[in-house]
Amino acid sequence: MTTSASVPTQQPHSLAVYFDHNATTPVHPEILNELPQVAQYFGNPSSIHWSSREPKRLIREARNKVAKALRANPLEIIFTSGASESNSTVFASFYALIKNQTRNEIITTKIEHPSVLRACENLLSQGITVHYISVNDSGNFDWDHFNKVLGPKTALVSVMLANNETGLILPVSEIAKATHIAGAWMHSDCVQAIGKMPIDLQDLEIDFASFSAHKIYALKGCGVLYVRKSSPLFPLIYGGGQERSRRGGTENTLAIWALGKSLEYESQYLAQYQEIQKIRDYFETQVCLKISDVSINHKNAPRLPHTSSLLINGIDGETMLMSLDLKGYAVSTGAACSSGNPEPSHVLLAMGLDRSKAQTSLRISFGIGNTVTEVDQFLIELQQSVARLRKIMNESFVEKNSVKEDLNFNL
Amino acid sequence: MTTSASVPTQQPHSLAVYFDHNATTPVHPEILNELPQVAQYFGNPSSIHWSSREPKRLIREARNKVAKALRANPLEIIFTSGASESNSTVFASFYALIKNQTRNEIITTKIEHPSVLRACENLLSQGITVHYISVNDSGNFDWDHFNKVLGPKTALVSVMLANNETGLILPVSEIAKATHIAGAWMHSDCVQAIGKMPIDLQDLEIDFASFSAHKIYALKGCGVLYVRKSSPLFPLIYGGGQERSRRGGTENTLAIWALGKSLEYESQYLAQYQEIQKIRDYFETQVCLKISDVSINHKNAPRLPHTSSLLINGIDGETMLMSLDLKGYAVSTGAACSSGNPEPSHVLLAMGLDRSKAQTSLRISFGIGNTVTEVDQFLIELQQSVARLRKIMNESFVEKNSVKEDLNFNL
Repeated sequence: MTTSASVPTQQPHSLAVYFDHNATTPVHPEILNELPQVAQYFGNPSSIHWSSREPKRLIREARNKVAKALRANPLEIIFTSGASESNSTVFASFYALIKNQTRNEIITTKIEHPSVLRACENLLSQGITVHYISVNDSGNFDWDHFNKVLGPKTALVSVMLANNETGLILPVSEIAKATHIAGAWMHSDCVQAIGKMPIDLQDLEIDFASFSAHKIYALKGCGVLYVRKSSPLFPLIYGGGQERSRRGGTENTLAIWALGKSLEYESQYLAQYQEIQKIRDYFETQVCLKISDVSINHKNAPRLPHTSSLLINGIDGETMLMSLDLKGYAVSTGAACSSGNPEPSHVLLAMGLDRSKAQTSLRISFGIGNTVTEVDQFLIELQQSVARLRKIMNESFVEKNSVKEDLNFNL
Repeated sequence: MTTSASVPTQQPHSLAVYFDHNATTPVHPEILNELPQVAQYFGNPSSIHWSSREPKRLIREARNKVAKALRANPLEIIFTSGASESNSTVFASFYALIKNQTRNEIITTKIEHPSVLRACENLLSQGITVHYISVNDSGNFDWDHFNKVLGPKTALVSVMLANNETGLILPVSEIAKATHIAGAWMHSDCVQAIGKMPIDLQDLEIDFASFSAHKIYALKGCGVLYVRKSSPLFPLIYGGGQERSRRGGTENTLAIWALGKSLEYESQYLAQYQEIQKIRDYFETQVCLKISDVSINHKNAPRLPHTSSLLINGIDGETMLMSLDLKGYAVSTGAACSSGNPEPSHVLLAMGLDRSKAQTSLRISFGIGNTVTEVDQFLIELQQSVARLRKIMNESFVEKNSVKEDLNFNL
């Protein structure tokens, strides 16, 4: 095994550059290389003959590696099909737990991932009270509102560790402390944080946490639900007693192995993301110098080292995205899972931005393999695109006004 | 692409033989070979830049291939993480649908997969009435009981197409007709049937069906939930609107592609399983000739072509399994997901077998790559193991009796 954790971006042509690591990440080359070999260990881990021995061992080792990276106990790690399943499990489990109880309220934020927000909408429709705490454009969690609604009726608090659109890091540890004092359970969606900031689940003192493998250079189809010892959990998926009867279904040995493999490099990722932060900060300085009327969301708040959420005044984010795509750059306007949705980002709206401003957003999320040279070239292309689009917007504005004048003349 | 669909069994040493295809199957060699290439298409299918184009195409093509193999409409295919998720989705969805309705009863059989039975147990604990229909040792579905409980209160009927332990094929089409006349919805767990018998979802007229990729030479971590047009469904996993908002979570492109790839060979699998049936039938004839006191479960009922469920009088199935494992043969006593469970098979008990008889079971499930030569060698080994184990049993019986005599003498 090499000690390098370089992850080249898979490119459709030589000019393509991937700047959308919050949507998903390329697969670590060592994982790619070993896929056919590991996939040959096809045995069902629940069997009790030779074919199951290697799969069992691969899963056990992966569980240990994941636990080590998260500073958790291996028994607290449940492998799922992804973070959306992990999140959905927590909310469905709490619904079963609290629906006939007096302690039956849930607190979350307005800037969570859609899997959390939609699960909460479902609970709302079942009569459960859900309180949504705001996070403003400075990145401040509304503690006043939180402290007001947190109390003897609170069953669960769910606050993400880092936001997928702006990279904002939330004060999860403090929220967890307050939550526990109120006698409630604490869940955190930690999908974007892993590998980019140290995560110590012992220190964070949260009871449930969700993780995704494909956001950290492993495969899609695998996630983790961390369930702290003695925390209540009802399974979402029933099956043959896998994962100590907490998650049924034949284990996805290949993707579980890949996650463990990737997390062998967790401490290297942390070091590499410190370098990536320099690239991100360089980009942000340059973009503000080179393009007028650009602002950066949550710039002065604690942020993940690799995410840059821009507002480029006068530019439609989706048009910009497509313009950059034609030049080979993969960026996004917000979360990938909301792409193609004409609505502006719910995160930016929740921060208090108006719709027209939120629609000018562009998210750049750097990752392993990205270079300053790529950023320099990207800045040139971005500058050109902005100039061109602003020109078109102005012309169309002038045109519209002259049409209006014509119309006035005709009236 | 070659036209061959030969799937060699991954073996830990040259003598190992895999006879446990109902637990899981080896990965098709073409899938194994192409894994690293396809895994390079890492883009999030929900993104709207270059990285998502190939993943989107792979998923679209896989959906078409799956739909074609099942004679369904591609829009009716939802990709899940596996059949346990598919089954769990149907039961959780119906719980949400019926809990406040008068039409709120469920009918299933006693021989379903644990994911169905445990989901039903959960519904029972929520106050839902579940009727369990028997299937006897001749393979007869208890129509009298079914017709008695089927009625205006029935919301959902769930009956597997083929049983995983004995291979019994159930009269799902007739059950579906009766179910629809009663105004209820029909679900079928079709996991074991796919590739081994033709499945025409148009003909079967079921509303929901579950499938698993790893039972048909593809990867673990992928399944299908077929939802017939206009059938009601609440999502189990919330996310960013994937699968037309019926199943959230970033798509497992690699495993979805692999399932589509494997199902390109569906008609070849059907032809190959006709050959496998000859091997199975040869095995059953020989085993009854060579070993005394052997019977075959559901032998005279409609059965899958590759499954053989034996009762070997006087032999503990699990001891036999371990004895055969030492010789390199992978077989099982029942479902893999119940392995290591000291309880005898719930399927055999449900068929009316007593516990001691059910404990003598051995399941052999043949698959692509298995040969008559392997069967001949296996018969020799099985014969030897049975003789040895019966001898030990007898000696222990004699010993016990002599101990008893000693004790009597001492008394």
